[in-house]
Amino acid sequence: MSTRRERANNEALRRLCAADPILIDILPAQEALPELDAATILTSGPPIPWESLEGGQRNAVIGGALFEGLARTAREAEEKIVGGEIRVAPCSQFGCVGSLAGIYTASMPVLVVKNAERGNLAYCNFYEGTNPRRLNYGVYDEGVRERLLHVQDVVAPVIREAVAAAGGIALKPIMQRALHMGDELHSRNTAASLLFARELFPSLLKVAATGRERVEAAIRAITADHYFFLRLSMAAAKSAADAAHGIEHSSVVSAMGFNCREFAIRVSGLGDEWFIGPHPVVEAKLFAGHTTEEISWMGGESVIIETTGLGGFAQAAAFPLQSYQGGSAEAMVANNLAMYDIVVGEHSDFRIPFLAYRGTPTGIDVLKVVESGRTPIMDIGIAGRDGGQIGAGLVRAHIGCFERAAAAYRRSYDAT
Amino acid sequence: MSTRRERANNEALRRLCAADPILIDILPAQEALPELDAATILTSGPPIPWESLEGGQRNAVIGGALFEGLARTAREAEEKIVGGEIRVAPCSQFGCVGSLAGIYTASMPVLVVKNAERGNLAYCNFYEGTNPRRLNYGVYDEGVRERLLHVQDVVAPVIREAVAAAGGIALKPIMQRALHMGDELHSRNTAASLLFARELFPSLLKVAATGRERVEAAIRAITADHYFFLRLSMAAAKSAADAAHGIEHSSVVSAMGFNCREFAIRVSGLGDEWFIGPHPVVEAKLFAGHTTEEISWMGGESVIIETTGLGGFAQAAAFPLQSYQGGSAEAMVANNLAMYDIVVGEHSDFRIPFLAYRGTPTGIDVLKVVESGRTPIMDIGIAGRDGGQIGAGLVRAHIGCFERAAAAYRRSYDAT
Repeated sequence: MSTRRERANNEALRRLCAADPILIDILPAQEALPELDAATILTSGPPIPWESLEGGQRNAVIGGALFEGLARTAREAEEKIVGGEIRVAPCSQFGCVGSLAGIYTASMPVLVVKNAERGNLAYCNFYEGTNPRRLNYGVYDEGVRERLLHVQDVVAPVIREAVAAAGGIALKPIMQRALHMGDELHSRNTAASLLFARELFPSLLKVAATGRERVEAAIRAITADHYFFLRLSMAAAKSAADAAHGIEHSSVVSAMGFNCREFAIRVSGLGDEWFIGPHPVVEAKLFAGHTTEEISWMGGESVIIETTGLGGFAQAAAFPLQSYQGGSAEAMVANNLAMYDIVVGEHSDFRIPFLAYRGTPTGIDVLKVVESGRTPIMDIGIAGRDGGQIGAGLVRAHIGCFERAAAAYRRSYDAT
Repeated sequence: MSTRRERANNEALRRLCAADPILIDILPAQEALPELDAATILTSGPPIPWESLEGGQRNAVIGGALFEGLARTAREAEEKIVGGEIRVAPCSQFGCVGSLAGIYTASMPVLVVKNAERGNLAYCNFYEGTNPRRLNYGVYDEGVRERLLHVQDVVAPVIREAVAAAGGIALKPIMQRALHMGDELHSRNTAASLLFARELFPSLLKVAATGRERVEAAIRAITADHYFFLRLSMAAAKSAADAAHGIEHSSVVSAMGFNCREFAIRVSGLGDEWFIGPHPVVEAKLFAGHTTEEISWMGGESVIIETTGLGGFAQAAAFPLQSYQGGSAEAMVANNLAMYDIVVGEHSDFRIPFLAYRGTPTGIDVLKVVESGRTPIMDIGIAGRDGGQIGAGLVRAHIGCFERAAAAYRRSYDAT
């Protein structure tokens, strides 16, 4: 029992709970991230050399190069990457958080979220739409390109104008209410997307004076695609988790994510090292016509959401997910309750109606994970071997990276 | 066991499930209801003579007369009512459904809902806003008047224009989705109000060309007051329950409601007779500063919602109601499950996520109520002696009116 550890972990929990994410702007990645040059492509997960990138994640990076006009053919893109003319870097090095393959290129619009409590910024790019063929699921073709351009040229500018007219949109009140409306803010963002639209309505009425059709298109993007808010939830979670990072003696997980080969976590008190282990175990419900053999890992950092007490850690708020990702209401309650064993405490503001408004389990403690043998449960989308989304479901993290992190913690702080 | 009864009740259930309510227009009551003359005031519940009307319901009728300009003082209103110059009639005689006291006057806007499955129409007037001092809670003063006029002059016309531009708004898809977002569509209409706003938004953008501020005011009315959709839920339920009324041999309840003195039900196969009994038993959570001694009955027909398998019959879809009307999630589940004992079957389209998407218990059978001794559980708002809303909670119907109806059924159909 380390009092310093307890104090540090309580401070991490406090920062996670106190985070106050505000959507302040929408900018092309290159403007939002001055250190991002025009020939860099960001992708999900811990750093990985190009030659190790495979499958959908490799295809997605190449697709990003084609979309950005950095190469005319896949072969040219690969040559330029090998030659260093196009650079590939992890999202996390730029304050970004990647959905699945998590491709960012210089011209893509990003949601700029500021944690008003500590002033730190986090970024996420946009949901591509309901079509399961998406760049972040390892697919690039003319249709993907058109949908990305629609987001870039129509949806993002309209929302940007409306956000500016509104003076920014506070995300936490939306997230709190969405938890009372069937969302867990990872695999289900239906209510949050509607609540976000509602906050923007008055400003969108103003923007409509400059052209009604583009505003209608933006509204469709926000409310027809129930996943729209996911990217805001990711950026909000990133802004909270980053705020809880770097606390000496804290054994709290401050990021989780994976690339096509490995799952990895960072720990608040252990600097910028990623502790790496095998991929999680999948309990997925696949869309009709797909089989488990098709399941493919192509990266993903949306599990930053679980790091902050949402998603799999708030699944008892989202019984409607049964039909989407499988599992019974009883199993969802049991899974959710199990997560209280591995966290520092309960979220002060994110609450679960079914559990008598108990705060969600928040602040994953690597030492508790190792002691209990329980690992985080995460709600994720499932990608197929040939690209595209083929399902959704729960994954349970492998304990390997937590064991490595716990060992490092003991080495660093001489704790038992 | 009567096969004719079973067939009749199955047809009643079928009609309840198949109802397809569409908001087709918003009109002043006098235009929507040609039989309503300018000097008639409608109020909730089974017919009751003026001298028996007391408390908030009496005050509300007088308030209606003042609002409509039928009298200049309360005393003058009472004299004109006694003298027959102002007439008081039950909402149900005009296809309307009354919230609490349920006051309709000739100039008030009403929501016109058409059940596309059978073509029948139902009407409900507008929610007055979040202020607990409301005409339908037995209060009339300058503030109440201003809020009623705001609805009449700003909110209703804007929504009317938008509904016309949209070609009508289908309510059932909204209600189905709202059940997956924490609403039971009686005491909680938060998601449904947002979903309704979303359906209307493209049309509101068009209306905004004629003046942005009035559209902003209408959007506020729809989305800031989480009860806005309640009146649409009531009209939708009325359109479904009316469609299930008048089926020979059916022992299914086709309306429930009360006035200041009595609770009453109608039965599909028993004509237009109201079967009358004592008021329900209240399990309420009162707003801070109020006591149970203040609880006052001033009428209410919103329990038409329970008649169609929603509200108290769908409470396991609405765990967020715990904090509003009291009770634990476990009690809500148990209450909801108990209702399956007294109904004909399960709703084909209204489903409860927590119960593995089981259809809501639908089609209250008076004979099953009497056999089981269980009575319907209803979610209602609670009025105070001095007017205004003082809380919300569950009420359990008294068995008396069901016993009377069951006896009448046996007399009519010679069933055992």
